[in-house]
Amino acid sequence: MYIGSIDIGGTKTITAVTDDNGCIISKKTFSTDIDDCYRHFDVCCKQLKKLTAAINIDISDLYGIGINVPGMYNPTTQILVKAPVASWENVEVVRYFREKLNFYYVYADNDVKTCALGEKYFGYKDKYKDYIWITISTGIGGAIVLNGKLLRGTDNFAGEIGHIKVAYENPNECSCGQFGCLEAHASGTSITNAVLSETEKDDVFKREFTMHNIPMDARGCSVLAEMGVQKAISIYDDMTDYLARGIATVINLINPQVVILGGGVSDSIDLLMPMIRKHIKKYVIAELAYTPIVHTKLGYEAALVGTAALVMESRAANTAP
Amino acid sequence: MYIGSIDIGGTKTITAVTDDNGCIISKKTFSTDIDDCYRHFDVCCKQLKKLTAAINIDISDLYGIGINVPGMYNPTTQILVKAPVASWENVEVVRYFREKLNFYYVYADNDVKTCALGEKYFGYKDKYKDYIWITISTGIGGAIVLNGKLLRGTDNFAGEIGHIKVAYENPNECSCGQFGCLEAHASGTSITNAVLSETEKDDVFKREFTMHNIPMDARGCSVLAEMGVQKAISIYDDMTDYLARGIATVINLINPQVVILGGGVSDSIDLLMPMIRKHIKKYVIAELAYTPIVHTKLGYEAALVGTAALVMESRAANTAP
Repeated sequence: MYIGSIDIGGTKTITAVTDDNGCIISKKTFSTDIDDCYRHFDVCCKQLKKLTAAINIDISDLYGIGINVPGMYNPTTQILVKAPVASWENVEVVRYFREKLNFYYVYADNDVKTCALGEKYFGYKDKYKDYIWITISTGIGGAIVLNGKLLRGTDNFAGEIGHIKVAYENPNECSCGQFGCLEAHASGTSITNAVLSETEKDDVFKREFTMHNIPMDARGCSVLAEMGVQKAISIYDDMTDYLARGIATVINLINPQVVILGGGVSDSIDLLMPMIRKHIKKYVIAELAYTPIVHTKLGYEAALVGTAALVMESRAANTAP
Repeated sequence: MYIGSIDIGGTKTITAVTDDNGCIISKKTFSTDIDDCYRHFDVCCKQLKKLTAAINIDISDLYGIGINVPGMYNPTTQILVKAPVASWENVEVVRYFREKLNFYYVYADNDVKTCALGEKYFGYKDKYKDYIWITISTGIGGAIVLNGKLLRGTDNFAGEIGHIKVAYENPNECSCGQFGCLEAHASGTSITNAVLSETEKDDVFKREFTMHNIPMDARGCSVLAEMGVQKAISIYDDMTDYLARGIATVINLINPQVVILGGGVSDSIDLLMPMIRKHIKKYVIAELAYTPIVHTKLGYEAALVGTAALVMESRAANTAP
């Protein structure tokens, strides 16, 4: 069974043919055209047609097409309300692809939500029915899955873990305009900001990056931390304290079976986990202190295979596309 | 249709006959015997029998008996794990009452959970299906209702709103042993502590209490605040800032239709609400800034009528008692 997968990010887009095991049959990566969404959607359609043609199937042979959109998506109205990375607003994503491809089973959602679904179909699968998914990447996003279903919330805003407050004194400003959000203290961007601020002040620390030819960003800092560079460790120690505050809050409220971490920053899981465990004891109620916190099983292409999960979830639920 | 209601608090217990509209037909209040739970349960049974006899019915004529227990209750095992106010531990509440009264339909839960159910049956009823209930009393407790059902959580700990952290710098110590819990900053106890600390330092403020013959506690402070006494207003302004942090966190995560406030402290709703509204804008994501926050419709006996709701919910769900 083949599925069309389109993962539209703020910088790049991946179009792929996947299967119902979440395996990627073939894929094509290209830049996202942030200036004109419809022009970009046309490119996505063209690429998807090429990929299906290459394996001798038609679009109509697909079980469905799943699309990640880079922003605030309303699954009820099927409208991309706003994509902060582009100038796209109020875009009828599903309708456009449906008409363009003359194909009914098109579904879209935010990539954080599809990652959470991906875990259900292709990751930990039946192991967990009640879990929290947290993407730690440029920003921080979250999704709450209860009894195997995404919690949407009254206005489709449930799971805004990135914007719960983890600092009230000297909080960092967040891109949302508020202060002290988890995203402003524990995202890749915030780690990079800390690295830039520290290297500015500390030449010895700066030399660690240049000497080893390591980029001065979140990833580079994790490499130095793993090498034992004290200031790099200290930056991650601070970041994981804030992260632990956010995770503890969700555990205290939802009491999930597990918290699953995804996104690029979480790839340094061996570095993060002992620190998270150390800090979280201060914040989570004693009875839930040992709630498992694990790394995604979806790997690097979590968001892409998430679109396949979205198709499977939506068709299983008989959701009209 | 008659229901037996037993609301066991840390200090007093109310036994009542209620009906399926949440109306109290008759009731009897007496002290809770914290030294011996079984001796106390026997008194509850005796009182309930007296109340039913007085309206010419038997225990067996009741639709069910609902019991609030003052502590951590596990609805799966039907065991009161621990009552912090008494020395009760691992008590098989339901089984004891069932055998003692020779009556099958006995249900128990924590009073915060039954209050939340009470709202569904006798309060806002069908108006809300997804809501957060917060009891602000001596302590702070919470319950999350999604699609009309209580969210229990993996270990029956979901809804621990009182122990999410709202202060990380100079946090108050909480009775749970951690620091910065909502309960430690916005409960009746924490307001009373602030009053005692301020009156100690400020004779003029202290005289406001003695002069008007007002007790130096949370309730007394609210009376002075409503009279315009600046320091009393300032104590509530601080408290509502912390409360807003807690409420905003829940809104950001769950995106409920409404947040319902109950418990003795929430009776000063006209004092609290403008302050909560002022503070919450700093913490809740902009799109959800206008999530309604309302006062319970259950009135003073919320916990008592909540037990009737527990019976109705449990019998409707065919939950074996």
